[in-house]
Parts: sequence; C-alpha cells; structure tokens
Amino acid sequence: MRIDRDACARRIAREIRKLSAPPFTNGPDGVTRYAFTAAYMHTVGYLSDQLSELGFAVTLDPVGNLIARNCPAKLGAVGLGSHCDSVRGGGSYDGTLGVLAAIEVARLSYQQGYDLPLQIISWVEEEASGFGQLLLGSRLATGRIDGQALQTEVRALDDGQSFFDHAREVGLQPERASEVSSALENLTAWIELHIEQGRVLEDAREQFGVVEAIAGYVHADIEILGQPDHAGATPMGLRHDAAIAAAQLTLELERLAIEAGGGSVATVGEMTLDPGAINIIPGRARLSLDVRAPNDTKISSIVQKAITAADEFAMSRGLQVTYRERQRMASAVLEPGVIAALERSVQATGAPWRRMISGAAHDTMCIASHVPSAMLFVPCRHGISHSPSEYASSANAALGVEVLLNAVIELSSAAAR
Amino acid sequence: MRIDRDACARRIAREIRKLSAPPFTNGPDGVTRYAFTAAYMHTVGYLSDQLSELGFAVTLDPVGNLIARNCPAKLGAVGLGSHCDSVRGGGSYDGTLGVLAAIEVARLSYQQGYDLPLQIISWVEEEASGFGQLLLGSRLATGRIDGQALQTEVRALDDGQSFFDHAREVGLQPERASEVSSALENLTAWIELHIEQGRVLEDAREQFGVVEAIAGYVHADIEILGQPDHAGATPMGLRHDAAIAAAQLTLELERLAIEAGGGSVATVGEMTLDPGAINIIPGRARLSLDVRAPNDTKISSIVQKAITAADEFAMSRGLQVTYRERQRMASAVLEPGVIAALERSVQATGAPWRRMISGAAHDTMCIASHVPSAMLFVPCRHGISHSPSEYASSANAALGVEVLLNAVIELSSAAAR
Repeated sequence: MRIDRDACARRIAREIRKLSAPPFTNGPDGVTRYAFTAAYMHTVGYLSDQLSELGFAVTLDPVGNLIARNCPAKLGAVGLGSHCDSVRGGGSYDGTLGVLAAIEVARLSYQQGYDLPLQIISWVEEEASGFGQLLLGSRLATGRIDGQALQTEVRALDDGQSFFDHAREVGLQPERASEVSSALENLTAWIELHIEQGRVLEDAREQFGVVEAIAGYVHADIEILGQPDHAGATPMGLRHDAAIAAAQLTLELERLAIEAGGGSVATVGEMTLDPGAINIIPGRARLSLDVRAPNDTKISSIVQKAITAADEFAMSRGLQVTYRERQRMASAVLEPGVIAALERSVQATGAPWRRMISGAAHDTMCIASHVPSAMLFVPCRHGISHSPSEYASSANAALGVEVLLNAVIELSSAAAR
Repeated sequence: MRIDRDACARRIAREIRKLSAPPFTNGPDGVTRYAFTAAYMHTVGYLSDQLSELGFAVTLDPVGNLIARNCPAKLGAVGLGSHCDSVRGGGSYDGTLGVLAAIEVARLSYQQGYDLPLQIISWVEEEASGFGQLLLGSRLATGRIDGQALQTEVRALDDGQSFFDHAREVGLQPERASEVSSALENLTAWIELHIEQGRVLEDAREQFGVVEAIAGYVHADIEILGQPDHAGATPMGLRHDAAIAAAQLTLELERLAIEAGGGSVATVGEMTLDPGAINIIPGRARLSLDVRAPNDTKISSIVQKAITAADEFAMSRGLQVTYRERQRMASAVLEPGVIAALERSVQATGAPWRRMISGAAHDTMCIASHVPSAMLFVPCRHGISHSPSEYASSANAALGVEVLLNAVIELSSAAAR
C-alpha cells in the first residue's frame, strides 16, 4: 500500500508547527508541555477532536492518558501512539511526532475505508518534566507504580502538590488509577514511532530503525565525602580530595561500559563539588550515574563494578562513598512478530534501514511486557533532542506513516485469521 | 625576654571573642567582615583606639589600610601586622590574630617601656570577599595594581559599585591611591603572624612554622566544549563527552603537582557540567585550576603541561579547550636576616617548630619585594580555616607574641647599629 506521501508530509509539518506555538506550549523557548498545564490540556483536547472526527471514541483515562478507539472494546485492535508531553524547553518532535503519525494512520484508514481496528494512545508524563517520574502513564498502566503513590511521592516539580490533586483539578478521577490497565486489554499489538534521539541513523544515512530491544537503565547518585582544605596550605600527601575520586570514577565508568559492550553505555551527566571554590580542596563530590544496556545482567554488573571501584578509589584516599539508586528499569526485548511486520513494511519502501537497540527509554518498554510490541525510529538532525533545535523530516515521517499503515494492515489481518 | 604569657593569652582570647560578635561581624554564622561594611569600619575603629592608647599615631590611608606608627615617619621602624577582613562566614583567627598579636607587641613595648620603633598595619581587602580581588591593600602599596583600577574593574560583589565610590562613601580619598606606597617607607623589616590554614604543624605536633617562602600561584579557568547528546541513544563511540576530558585533566593535574614536587600543589576546586542532567552527555565542562609552588618556573611548567594535556585529551575526543587565566602571583622568597631573627626567638621558647613554605597567599608576598620580610605560622585546629569552626590556641598565640617581641628587639637594635 503506497500512500500520498507528499500530502501526508504536509499535514504532519502543519500539525508539528501548530503544536509548537501557543496555546500548545507554555514557554517561549522551544516546547514546554507537561501534565496538567493549560498547554497540555489544549493539546490533548486538540488531538481528541482530530480523532473524534475520524470516528474514534476518545477518553482521558483516570490519570490523563488519552485513549481513542475506533472499534468495540471487546474486539482486538492494534495500538499506535506515543506521548505528547515534552521536557521543559524541548523540541517539537519528541513523542508528539509518534502521536501525529498514529493519527495519520487513522486518517488514511478512515478516508480510504480500510476500517482498521485501531487504538491510539498518548501516554501522560513520559518525560518526567511535570512530576519528576519518567514513563508515568505507561508505568501506571502496567502496574509498575502503585496508584497510591500518586497521592504521596509523585509531586509536581513546580508547586509540590500531588499528582492526585493536580489530576482532580483538571477533572480526572485518579482514585480510579487501578482501572488504567484496561488501556492494554484487547490490544493485539503495539507500535510506537519515535525520533531516534541519537546519531546512529544519521551517521549511517539510514531512514528507519526497527527497534528490537529497549535498554534498561539504572539512575543513581554517588556521593564522595572527603575533607575541605585550603588549596595552598595542604600538601598533596595530606589531602582527602573528593574531586579526585569523582574523576577516577567518571573514567572508570566509561571503561566499564566499553568493556561490557553490546550496546552498553554509561554517563556522568551531573557533578557538583562542594564547597566549589577555586582555592578550596573539594570536601564533597556528588555525581550522577546513568547506566544502560539491552541486557539487565550487564547493567547490574557495570553498576556493581562501579560501586566497587568507587569504594577502592575512596579507601586509598581516606574518603567515604554512598550510593543511592533513583530508579531502575528492566530492559525490554520487543516481539519478533511485530518486528517482522515492521521490517517487511520498511523493506517495501526501499528506504535504507537497520535493526537497532533503543538506548533511550520509551513507554513501549513498559507496554512490551503486556502487549506484543515494537518501535520504529526515524532519524533526527544531528541526534539533537530535548532542545528547541530538535528536527526531523516530515517527508521521512510520512514514509514512516506508510510503514505503520502497512504493518497494521498485516497485523490486523493476521489477528483476524 | 619572657613575657607574662598567661595574661597575654587571656587578652588575645578576649579580643578574639569580642571581634567575633556584633558589631564587629555582619553575619550570624561565623565572622563576615569586608571593606567597607559597618562591621569592618567598627573593627578598624576599635583597633585604632587600642593603638592610640598605646601612643601610636593612627591613620586610614587613602584606600583604607590601617597604618599606626609610634615613632617619627623618618625613623626606621619594624612593621608588624596582617589583615582584619574575613571571608564571608569565616573564622575568628585568619588575619585578625596577626593584627591582635602585633598590638600585643606594641602593648608590651609600651607597658614595659621598651619604646620599640613599630609600625602596625592592617591591610585592607586581603580576602577578596568584598571586591573579588585578593591582597588588594598590599598590592596597591607595592604597585601591583594601578589606582585607576579602583574606579573600573574593582567592583563590590554585593552591588557592583566601584571600590573608589565605596571608599569615598566612608570618607577615604581613593584618588590619592598612589600615595599608599608610603606605608612601606622607612620600614627596616616586616613580620606577619598568621594561622597556618593547613595541617602540617598539627600533624607534626609543632607550635611554630617560620616561613621562608610563599608559594606563587596561578588561578585559571579551563572550559571544555563537546556535544550534549542523549545519554541512552548515543553509543560510547559516538560521544563528545566534555566530562571525560575534565576528569582526565583533574587526575593529570594531581600527577603533575606530585611529579613537580618541592611543595607544588594543584587543585580543581570548581567543576560545572552543562547542561547538568543525569540523562544528557555533558556538552560543556568548566573547571578551575589552582596551581601553586614556591618556584615560579615550576608553576609555569605545571600550568603549561596541564594545558598541553587538556588539548590532547580534547583532540582525541573531538572536543575544544579554552584556557583563561584569572590571576597570577609570583612566589616570594623571604629575607634570611628576618627569618634568622625569628628562628632565634622561636628557639628561645623551647617550643617545637620548623621552617616551612606557605602554600597560602598572604599580604607578605607583596611586602617582601619592598621590605625584608618573614612570617610566623601558628597551627590551627585540623587545618580548618575560612570556616566558623576555625580555631587557634590563645596560649600558642601569646607565645607567638613573645617570639615577635624578641625578634623585633633584635631587628631594632641591629637597625640602630
């Protein structure tokens, strides 16, 4: 099935442009949109209207996930979608492009009379920019976080008020959070289109990545305690310099990730030295750990070796180390049948592509344990994401819509057999 | 000459206590006192009154240095003193103890009728906490900074107003800054007593350090530019991670200082990663460099090797490095005759002591190029300074007063010969 790619690309470009401006964003620099701000509610409302016009029954579930279905709840449907929230000062494509692509599939199905059984979802709070919790909507739908937490630890970064209270304010019923899992009932498959957020496809001049696994991750903080001393008056041999152990650990983490291989990555993105003055030896260093791999054993091994190394670096200098885990997500292996359907559709376009692993987290890593799932990556310029300069080609996205449409057709007919 | 050490220790303890409380400090946590705050002006006024009572002619010079002399300007005098400004939230002893010890020498000379020719100085803005410029008073007195700068780059950290304007506000005549050098005319010697601000003396259980040289230093900033990328979606081989080069440089600096030896030290006290998020590869790292040695060639060599190393680390990862020097001070070799007089006086007390190098900067490193100079260090507890928990023994300080007194007697009689 070949779609009118140009027309589709124009629609996507127009929608992207529209959703990057008021009232669909809260800030002047880039897109800022998180639950349950005015920009977010406007966006969800706009997307709902689009889907209603295409014959979908649209609801916001008790926690704010947008669920739209064009066939009876009892019937099997293919799920498509992503998220429409953004980081603060983010780009126009991350998440939103996947929702728009799903709506394009729905539009083509409706206009061409395919009547494909579809359920389109825009998951709430994927980016953690409103409430500090990544993948919140999909974690709630898959029992990875308890509904009770919405009244306690899940609090708005802006005002400290609970997710529960904020959800009630916009008319939702978060006390019914346990019903959110019904979003995944009677889904025969789930596909999320997303920008790659890396440079693998661009560097290889490829147009698509069919994602076969999503890396799990550990996010943690390491604190190193030494002794703040005068930088001039303290000989090298008398120092308990926390920055030195922090530097050693930073380099060791890089070495461990390279040694582990197989798509393992490790990053120190945050580092704070205290007191942080040019002429005082740091008495305290805090650094963040981001360790990812498509294999949970590798993640645990890298983290464990990093902790051991940190202890050794610290011991030899009279320092102390504490390790505190922020979050741990298991890796997700995606489903061969859905992957194969996507691959056949990609091949039919003739565009260059590869199978790949997603190093970034996506809602699909939660969904995959409940519904046969896969993802389709499109390149984004220079790999830049979470930035106003994020950019992805509408023409390529339109080709992605064609890939999605053909995969859905194949998966729907397979489900019907 | 043996003084009444107990009485002297009690006076010093009382004065330290008095000057650590309102109206002599601006803040509730530790001592905060910088030019030309109410706390600073109260302190200078109080010290002036003490010195007037001891027969000194006291003036604030055009930039706020407190100059007190008990003999005609034309006559040779021994200079004693330090500074009475503090860092923000600092301790009670840094600088102030040296001024109080000098006043004790004046008191004993006056009370016992020695009539030693003395000039006591409390240098303004040693700590840079008011106007961001270390050793300001002594640098002005020795032509290391031009009086014009007081109207331009020397600006208050609090309100951005010039030093010039602030000085005028408290009744000084900063337009006469060029006359400040007269403070050093007709000084036959200069001795500054100061807390060590390190742990060398405490660790060796020694009561005095006779300082034979003051390390010079380079303060600089190094910025490393890479590329901010998604920590999950960017394979290890595609990264331009500024934090890795920053970590390499931190370790290399330590190695270079140890390799250089001879009292060389190097410190990374500040480090900032941008954008500074757990899941973003740092695209920019900024770190501070503090390199000190009692030998300027060693300082330059360490700095030059560090820059070369930074360039190499950066080159291999596609990063860029910029180096910006904040300040450079030459090291100071102190004067053998004054050192010898101090050593004989210390030996006479029977207390354990050592010759040592000051890694910390002091006004004396400026004075030494104009007047034969030395310093006497007393230990401070755990080497802690620039902190409310700074502590030095009053008994030890009183013994230091005895050392100063005897050194002044020797130097005065030598000068009179």
